[in-house]
Amino acid sequence: MAEVEKYSHKIVKKIRFRIPDVPGALGTLALALGIEGVTLGDITKIHLTSNYIVRDIIAFFDDEEQFHKAIAAVKTLKGYKVLAIQDEVLNLHRGGKIEVMPRVKVETLNDLRMIYTPGVAQVCNYIVANPASTRDYTSIGNTVCIATNGSAVLGLGNIGVLAAMPVMEGKSIILNKMAGVSCVPLLLKSEDADEIVNSLACLAETFSVIMIEDISAPLCFEVEQKLQKRVKVPVFHDDQHGTATVILAALIKALRMTGKKKENVEIAINGAGAAGIAAAKLMLGYGFRHIVFCDRAGAIYEGRPKDMNPYKREVARITNKRREKGALKDILKGKDVFIGLSAPGLVSKQMVKTMNRRPIIFALANPVPEIWPKDAEEAGASIALDGRTINNALAFPGIIRGALDSRAKEITTEMKFSAAEEIASLAGKNEVVPNFMNIAVHEKVAKAVASAARKGRTS
Amino acid sequence: MAEVEKYSHKIVKKIRFRIPDVPGALGTLALALGIEGVTLGDITKIHLTSNYIVRDIIAFFDDEEQFHKAIAAVKTLKGYKVLAIQDEVLNLHRGGKIEVMPRVKVETLNDLRMIYTPGVAQVCNYIVANPASTRDYTSIGNTVCIATNGSAVLGLGNIGVLAAMPVMEGKSIILNKMAGVSCVPLLLKSEDADEIVNSLACLAETFSVIMIEDISAPLCFEVEQKLQKRVKVPVFHDDQHGTATVILAALIKALRMTGKKKENVEIAINGAGAAGIAAAKLMLGYGFRHIVFCDRAGAIYEGRPKDMNPYKREVARITNKRREKGALKDILKGKDVFIGLSAPGLVSKQMVKTMNRRPIIFALANPVPEIWPKDAEEAGASIALDGRTINNALAFPGIIRGALDSRAKEITTEMKFSAAEEIASLAGKNEVVPNFMNIAVHEKVAKAVASAARKGRTS
Repeated sequence: MAEVEKYSHKIVKKIRFRIPDVPGALGTLALALGIEGVTLGDITKIHLTSNYIVRDIIAFFDDEEQFHKAIAAVKTLKGYKVLAIQDEVLNLHRGGKIEVMPRVKVETLNDLRMIYTPGVAQVCNYIVANPASTRDYTSIGNTVCIATNGSAVLGLGNIGVLAAMPVMEGKSIILNKMAGVSCVPLLLKSEDADEIVNSLACLAETFSVIMIEDISAPLCFEVEQKLQKRVKVPVFHDDQHGTATVILAALIKALRMTGKKKENVEIAINGAGAAGIAAAKLMLGYGFRHIVFCDRAGAIYEGRPKDMNPYKREVARITNKRREKGALKDILKGKDVFIGLSAPGLVSKQMVKTMNRRPIIFALANPVPEIWPKDAEEAGASIALDGRTINNALAFPGIIRGALDSRAKEITTEMKFSAAEEIASLAGKNEVVPNFMNIAVHEKVAKAVASAARKGRTS
Repeated sequence: MAEVEKYSHKIVKKIRFRIPDVPGALGTLALALGIEGVTLGDITKIHLTSNYIVRDIIAFFDDEEQFHKAIAAVKTLKGYKVLAIQDEVLNLHRGGKIEVMPRVKVETLNDLRMIYTPGVAQVCNYIVANPASTRDYTSIGNTVCIATNGSAVLGLGNIGVLAAMPVMEGKSIILNKMAGVSCVPLLLKSEDADEIVNSLACLAETFSVIMIEDISAPLCFEVEQKLQKRVKVPVFHDDQHGTATVILAALIKALRMTGKKKENVEIAINGAGAAGIAAAKLMLGYGFRHIVFCDRAGAIYEGRPKDMNPYKREVARITNKRREKGALKDILKGKDVFIGLSAPGLVSKQMVKTMNRRPIIFALANPVPEIWPKDAEEAGASIALDGRTINNALAFPGIIRGALDSRAKEITTEMKFSAAEEIASLAGKNEVVPNFMNIAVHEKVAKAVASAARKGRTS
């Protein structure tokens, strides 16, 4: 259990301890913290006196309560002292996490006169004469934006644009580290689809892909659809299509591992939000047939009298052909696959036990899943994963890189299929998906996506 | 003359020559190019054979004609061969000149979990609870945008947003190298002030300063004024206010060097565009009294019957109190200062000779000035400079840095005065302005500007 929960650490502190300079003193401290459930990161020696050593220790805590209990425990140790405590996550984010930097050397006046006036005029004139060369001679060809209005940030909800910025910067870094993309966050203070679309359409020429991110449904659907009609570059909503692609990838591999067939598997999806709907559409397009959605009111079926909206009506139209009704625990009976995009703890071991043989569980609520994978496995799940493994970071870097490399004008279903198949094929023999920290994965996904984009143009 | 003209080089080539491997062979080549007026940059040895050396030579040309003549001249030399010619300016711009980069290390999964989910949620929550900390924990505090619609780019005119991008990237680099600012170019495809203002206002929270750039007059005035009313960060149009600040700085120092007084000097400005009008307003605010504007139709005065518009009517109202009339050559008679923001070659030596004693000439048309400084000096100018010296890059990096450091909400006249006085004071004994490649200059200007901003808030 500690093994699982260590992944949900949200608090990281850098603590400066004064400890006795005797063998075993550090071990005593580490053990005292460990007993409280604290895990440790880097330990740095700061200085020595005749009797004491001062060390900075990075420590990971589940919550504030655990943090205070652990500090109190250390204070009871004789000869140990807490000198200072800094919040390491806040420290890391100080000053922001990204920056626009030059890619060229500017050391002399002559350098400057080539990158700016008068030399730059030659490049301007060249682009006027050869507009198709713009992506070759400007940063546009490698630059995307990631636009949010802060209305549906992580599991935090509508926290506004400013508080959304650390997330946008994080995603910008992932795109850069995994796929070499230059990614500009844009904070749009608006709840109005047309206002957001007008703003992004006006500046669309600056970028080769427009990502929209953490915008609440149904606003995100309207923005995506209207904007794609207005601009000549792909509009990509990762919360929908990145998630859908990774789920499809994981399903392809999980079926291969469990010997199930896409035409026959029975799938329950809990959570009829943007991600779930996009995943279902992608799966149906790929050849899956039997999907039932649940929300708080239970199974979604055509003609359900309450808690419907235009998007759920579409869900009802394209899924649940047998018009199954009931709560999630009823629907899960006899299903092969559970996909959770909902809330913590909604699935019990007992519910997993009622599923078909060799059930597949993707419990993707973040940071705490519908059921912990370990519990699902104990209840008989053949494959059980949460959002730490089935992670968007597996798909979007390669999809965006592939779209840039192929100069795609939109991101088609075929490009997402190619990405999903490539991700599935890159997973090791006993893995459902590959490790997203492996840069080679993103390079291969990008190649597959670019190839699908080029094929789409010539077919 | 060659001394002056080398600064107007617009063509830079990297030429691969095969030359004999004998002493003096490189000298012969360099001389042959020099006779044609070509200047040389870096020379790199590529490889050696038994008889020949292959070298890459960076060469600067005034125009295509000179380039072709020089190549033809080399081809007449026995044993010399041109193997390849590349356009070095285009090469330098290939792939774009800027990029959004991480400022933090992301090497392990743990790093990623601190900069993105789940760790980032802690920073989001902190900002929700402490909105004033946004600039501390995001990139916003150090990030500005530079927005253009490509309608008045350098001396090239309305070349469109895509061809404007190399200029925006160049300016982004200058801001970064000189003042450590992160600067995002935004290309706004619109000729409509309200559309531009709405787009920028919608995303204003992303940035701590909004620069507008290379937008034609009078659109730039309307955008600047409307936008500043809508947003809580400074809106800065460098073409107006950066130019005005540098001109004021140069004037302050030039008066000091020539013993003239601001209350008495007679000033002629040629070119009633955005920069000239902004300069005149700043100068009048600073205590200058006697300014006469000229445009293609001659002196601008109140009641002039033709070639007027609302902006020229304002010029007529605030300048030329004596209602001087006539062509530029008439107006220049008896003036102490000429400021050119117009077109090449409009001022002759003869015209300079009709000015007051110890005349000051700032001929800022780019890249070829109203009169070359050397010619103006020969005609008796006490101080004669062009746009290579009186350069916007002297002011805007420090102004923007100062605005960021003081978290200014607009850039006030007092901030511009402080910048101008600081720039003037940093010039060496015999210099009118300091060298803008000197980073210490920008640091000091930033301090002066930030101090003026803080003083403005408390007064």
